[in-house]
Amino acid sequence: MATSSDMEVLRDAALEMASAAGNAILPHFRRALAIENKAETGFDPVTEADRAAEAAIRHIIRHRFPGDGIIGEEYGDERTDAERIWVLDPIDGTRAFVLGLPVWATLIGVIEAGRPLFGLMHQPFVGETFMGWGEHALIRRGGTETALRARPCAALSDATLATTTPAMFSGDERTAYDRVEAAAKTVRYGTDCYAYALLAAGLNDLVIESGLQPYDVVALIPIVRGAGGEIASWDGGAPDAGGRIVAAGDARILDAARTILQNSA
Amino acid sequence: MATSSDMEVLRDAALEMASAAGNAILPHFRRALAIENKAETGFDPVTEADRAAEAAIRHIIRHRFPGDGIIGEEYGDERTDAERIWVLDPIDGTRAFVLGLPVWATLIGVIEAGRPLFGLMHQPFVGETFMGWGEHALIRRGGTETALRARPCAALSDATLATTTPAMFSGDERTAYDRVEAAAKTVRYGTDCYAYALLAAGLNDLVIESGLQPYDVVALIPIVRGAGGEIASWDGGAPDAGGRIVAAGDARILDAARTILQNSA
Repeated sequence: MATSSDMEVLRDAALEMASAAGNAILPHFRRALAIENKAETGFDPVTEADRAAEAAIRHIIRHRFPGDGIIGEEYGDERTDAERIWVLDPIDGTRAFVLGLPVWATLIGVIEAGRPLFGLMHQPFVGETFMGWGEHALIRRGGTETALRARPCAALSDATLATTTPAMFSGDERTAYDRVEAAAKTVRYGTDCYAYALLAAGLNDLVIESGLQPYDVVALIPIVRGAGGEIASWDGGAPDAGGRIVAAGDARILDAARTILQNSA
Repeated sequence: MATSSDMEVLRDAALEMASAAGNAILPHFRRALAIENKAETGFDPVTEADRAAEAAIRHIIRHRFPGDGIIGEEYGDERTDAERIWVLDPIDGTRAFVLGLPVWATLIGVIEAGRPLFGLMHQPFVGETFMGWGEHALIRRGGTETALRARPCAALSDATLATTTPAMFSGDERTAYDRVEAAAKTVRYGTDCYAYALLAAGLNDLVIESGLQPYDVVALIPIVRGAGGEIASWDGGAPDAGGRIVAAGDARILDAARTILQNSA
């Protein structure tokens, strides 16, 4: 069990990693703007940015916590038998990144003894960081930290739903998703990791996604839970491994959505 | 015809309006974060922000250009027989605003002698402003201005498409839209006015929307055209009145998309 001073060390280290990742990524964001002949570019800024950011984060982990394990999108797994494992997605929302839309983020999660312990989501262009651990969640912007709290929502018919795109669901999954969407009050697409962060902020009620990797979700779990929200797989299991994920600010909505999802998919 | 010094006066005034609008809007953005009991809020932050911002912009127009006309989303039309008319949407992308997603913006357009002359799109939370007039388009951020230039794209099969949501199309319109989406390389939802600004920035190839009001599009026309892009109604007419809009960074894509849209809708 991590003590509060352990947690402060982790938090400070994760903020240092986020900052290093942001510095590695930003020169590549909207890089086309700086290039004269757009027809002859041929670069892949998202891959370059992803790799540079993950290398920067891994460098800090190896230096500060040499015994820890790492699971990352770009450079694979290291020491996954360690007690503590860092789970990294340098750019979550690559399609938004490529389009120049500032709703991608760097995700840094920490698993201890097999359970999500701490999560951070950092958007360096907007200049904001969401963090969560235990019963705490906060947003940090311009040096100010504000606590996050999910909002109550009694019924699906009152719920705002967010998902990156309905095209992430196929076959029976899509049928299941469409039923929840039809029952919700309103839906927003194109949200990526922000769907979860804004749920924690009390601005969104429900997120449904599929096909997620562990590094897409591990960092978001402590943010959602720290704000009093719930996150699970569609069948009610732990969300840590990714796959089909449902998150809600209110347990009543989670249950209502899961009932539809399980009976359709 | 506006001279270049006239244009500088307009630009400076529009930037002053954008700044005033941002100051009026930002206290309402993500306001739920600052409120303890989320169940008993009952406010409508988007309406309050919209009205406060449009009032702030109108105040500056009346003071600096008392003879000009105004078309605005919140407070209706004034002097629409004037030679020059300001077309205002204080918050384009209200759904993004309500969700706390920083991809809404303030739109300020100027029509002179019935033609779009100047356009500005301002996102105060991200801290960036897109502007266009004549053959000029630029992004301003942190005091730096960078020219915008749309990118070439020879075929729909190479095109990135962006639209706010496919749910904005109904009946035959939806069939038409779906055919273009199927022909495009990739699609992104949830883009609002950013779809047009990022097209001007050479990061997006195609935007298709429907049901737009004049104040949703007038400010974006000079940004798209100033960057070398094209924007029209689906039937090839002027886009100034809103309705069904298609914009492309390359005329070849505009023609290809319009051929599909006209033959289906």
